[in-house]
Amino acid sequence: MVRPDSGMDDYLAPTSDTIEIQARLAMPLAEAMLTQRAIRRVQPTPVDDRVVLRCLELALEAPTASNGQTWQFVIVKERAVKAQLAAQYRRAWRLYGGLGRLARPDDQTVKILKSVQWQVEHFEEIPVLVVCCVRGGTGLPFLPKPAIAASSHYGSIYPSVQNLLLAARSVGLGGALITLPLWSNLVARKILALPLNVEPCCIVTLGWPKGRYGRKTRKPIGTVVHLDRYGNQPWKDRAPA
Amino acid sequence: MVRPDSGMDDYLAPTSDTIEIQARLAMPLAEAMLTQRAIRRVQPTPVDDRVVLRCLELALEAPTASNGQTWQFVIVKERAVKAQLAAQYRRAWRLYGGLGRLARPDDQTVKILKSVQWQVEHFEEIPVLVVCCVRGGTGLPFLPKPAIAASSHYGSIYPSVQNLLLAARSVGLGGALITLPLWSNLVARKILALPLNVEPCCIVTLGWPKGRYGRKTRKPIGTVVHLDRYGNQPWKDRAPA
Repeated sequence: MVRPDSGMDDYLAPTSDTIEIQARLAMPLAEAMLTQRAIRRVQPTPVDDRVVLRCLELALEAPTASNGQTWQFVIVKERAVKAQLAAQYRRAWRLYGGLGRLARPDDQTVKILKSVQWQVEHFEEIPVLVVCCVRGGTGLPFLPKPAIAASSHYGSIYPSVQNLLLAARSVGLGGALITLPLWSNLVARKILALPLNVEPCCIVTLGWPKGRYGRKTRKPIGTVVHLDRYGNQPWKDRAPA
Repeated sequence: MVRPDSGMDDYLAPTSDTIEIQARLAMPLAEAMLTQRAIRRVQPTPVDDRVVLRCLELALEAPTASNGQTWQFVIVKERAVKAQLAAQYRRAWRLYGGLGRLARPDDQTVKILKSVQWQVEHFEEIPVLVVCCVRGGTGLPFLPKPAIAASSHYGSIYPSVQNLLLAARSVGLGGALITLPLWSNLVARKILALPLNVEPCCIVTLGWPKGRYGRKTRKPIGTVVHLDRYGNQPWKDRAPA
């Protein structure tokens, strides 16, 4: 198990060994969170089903509204299905990525735009796409929900998505969270044969990374934390831990 | 640091010691996920700000749509503010909890309903409420969003909420994710002095637990995982790991 002392910029070789996978999933929680980042450039090498399923098992440990466990996950490996989602992604990216470039992006945003561009161009080569879905409570899929119902609805899938991403980071798989290929729910449903009451919410792309995990920059906590009421920010000048 | 060999049913005493907090946050990732559960019954003992802020710092390591970091967190400790949110919670629970009891709940659901009932009755005594909010992109707070925009919106807060819950579990704080006190966004905004473009999405309740963390039951993974298209379930009979 390759892990340098720093623990902050490691590279883990592809594996399908169950014992090795378990060992990697014992990464210290804070380290996994601190070094989680979107890894979009991945090798075309296949990812063993055992790795993906183990990460998904941990995804299922997350909470859901009223313990409904209303999640459904479609693992996409077939090239023809990926190609259909890729076409949707390219259609959306032509507009959205163009807007991003128009907006005079800073250096970090330019880096992100480039890595998304790579992902858009190589989408069919990404070994595994996990389409994360949630069953709707209302049975009225095209009707927008009031805020709190919408929050509970998506709040029943994104905690599990975050578990999936953290588990992927921990085993050394590159993972990234995207929604653009699903911009048309109708088309995405058709591609994946989803019933009307199952909503595709996002895709987690998975593959053994070309890049490395490592720390990222974040706004200081004091600027986004308030006490008792919005605008009261006693920790504004708190130094990061 | 109290942690029995089983690692699956431990109790961690309240602490405010920075080194102890760091040590606890090094819990193996899989263990934190496997033993995460909603802990609603908590002691009224205050929770040191350092513990809450450290957990929130890890929450900020989660991904957001287009790296927007559009989250805002209001830590509520003042009793008067808690009482106002409690009144909203009780109003919603009278209807929702009543419906839950009407629906002939199974044993596990009865346990959950009882623990929510405790929380509703003791809401003002919970030491810390973290109201997790997200800035809306549209500037039109009362207009429902199309599915993919809504998914990106809530997908920019719930990964961080899950980090917060996992960090809380890891340091031994009892945490639970709730939305009912926010059923009226308008009233919640007023209580917390939130601007119109900041949406309160959920509350994480925090306190040193009366109960214990431990493994929970989940539907087998094979029943919620599909390959390439919905309904194709090759792992239907897979034994859990």
